[in-house]
Amino acid sequence: MRDLSADASLLSLNTITVREKWSLAECIDSCVRHGIGGISPWRDKLEECGTDEAARRIADAGLTVTGLCRGGMFPAADAAGRQAALDDNRRAVDDACTIGARCLVLVVGGLPPNSRDIAGARQQVCDGIAKLLEHSRAAGMPLAIEPLHPMYAADRACVNTLAQANDICDELGDDGLGIAVDLYHVWWDPDLAAQITRAGAKRLLAFHVCDWLVPTTDMLLDRGMMGDGVIDIRGIRRLVEAAGYDGFCETEILSRRWWAEEPDTVLSTLVERHRTVV
Amino acid sequence: MRDLSADASLLSLNTITVREKWSLAECIDSCVRHGIGGISPWRDKLEECGTDEAARRIADAGLTVTGLCRGGMFPAADAAGRQAALDDNRRAVDDACTIGARCLVLVVGGLPPNSRDIAGARQQVCDGIAKLLEHSRAAGMPLAIEPLHPMYAADRACVNTLAQANDICDELGDDGLGIAVDLYHVWWDPDLAAQITRAGAKRLLAFHVCDWLVPTTDMLLDRGMMGDGVIDIRGIRRLVEAAGYDGFCETEILSRRWWAEEPDTVLSTLVERHRTVV
Repeated sequence: MRDLSADASLLSLNTITVREKWSLAECIDSCVRHGIGGISPWRDKLEECGTDEAARRIADAGLTVTGLCRGGMFPAADAAGRQAALDDNRRAVDDACTIGARCLVLVVGGLPPNSRDIAGARQQVCDGIAKLLEHSRAAGMPLAIEPLHPMYAADRACVNTLAQANDICDELGDDGLGIAVDLYHVWWDPDLAAQITRAGAKRLLAFHVCDWLVPTTDMLLDRGMMGDGVIDIRGIRRLVEAAGYDGFCETEILSRRWWAEEPDTVLSTLVERHRTVV
Repeated sequence: MRDLSADASLLSLNTITVREKWSLAECIDSCVRHGIGGISPWRDKLEECGTDEAARRIADAGLTVTGLCRGGMFPAADAAGRQAALDDNRRAVDDACTIGARCLVLVVGGLPPNSRDIAGARQQVCDGIAKLLEHSRAAGMPLAIEPLHPMYAADRACVNTLAQANDICDELGDDGLGIAVDLYHVWWDPDLAAQITRAGAKRLLAFHVCDWLVPTTDMLLDRGMMGDGVIDIRGIRRLVEAAGYDGFCETEILSRRWWAEEPDTVLSTLVERHRTVV
């Protein structure tokens, strides 16, 4: 079994971690400087310089693109809305191909406006992924369903457990479809170990790390640096490794506290915590 | 099948809904005035006038005590802490008996200080309930395990799904043990319908209603009035009724917005929403 925390070459920077102060170009240069081997951009960062230029810069730097954030947001109030989401998702697949991403991460979306039908939203998600797979499979771009914490069920993602993500993979087939495990969203799940085993190496496409703070003061922008919270990060890392995952640890920290920090300090902290607590 | 929303005689006021402005005595008098048939006090409200006096006033008003909030908080860093929790829980059982509550609601507690061992905390919860049952069964007071939303897993309750609560009932036996279903905590659960059916009439000891707002601006104090959010309240009410529940709908709204309101307006709104959306 490979030790994911051995060095920063298997660490990946999700650009949202430093998005307030750094451009994509600065993220890329700084990853190289800190020995961080991977990067996972959000689409807003691709738009800064254009996807082709972003792809060239990342390739020149020798970074692995552990994912593109993000596709998804499938549910909509009507067919036109669902079609618009599908069209945008196809562009996201194409962008992911252009930058050579290992997967396109899917934040699947919550309830359509004025809806209380979460079962219906979940069906729309499954239908939307099925349609997107026609394009993504042809393009050779794996889709990674990211279960989000249940506190985002209404407005961001109605897939809230690994069990649901595994069920969707069962239904739609593993070809070009898998799961992004983000500790922040799944650490509390009593079924976590069993569902990681069920997913297995084939479905485990990405592993995102951060921490859950006590207290958490904001539902979106108060994620913790690894080691500052209550998640048994190393324990869960061992579970994904035991299931066969041998990819990167991607750090995705949405945090006003860390956004206010000097980004170089953030990156050196990521490298140190990756070594000591991940 | 009884229609729970037919009239306010099957509506219960959880005192936390108006705790900022009203004493227990004011809550009691106002329930009578609004035709609300039940009350569920928190222990802080019992302390205002003493438990015996509270029991007398509630009985004189003819209100049903749908529950006492709350026991629980079992996990602790050491044996002394666990014993202190058990002692306090026994007092809570005694208070629940004194006021003639239908159940003692258990908010089971989260991680002990400096712990990252959520599986261990869950075991402590199970052990704690087992010990408390020796006392509560002798006293004839049912314990109602309340699964809390996963966003409270670290600091309030590490029992976060109905499945976990059902598992604990399976392990410890149904005699004097059941579940409090609070919509706020479980509405997102993809396994909700199946777990309500699994619980059945025997385990369904309480049904708490409020709503999930979009956006939610505070993790603790921004619960919504029924009808103002995205929960399919009537749909879930039908599930619990179909499983055999024929008790009260208890309104438990922790909300700065509603705490700032004139309490009589809150109660008339509860009655109206109970009739129209619950």
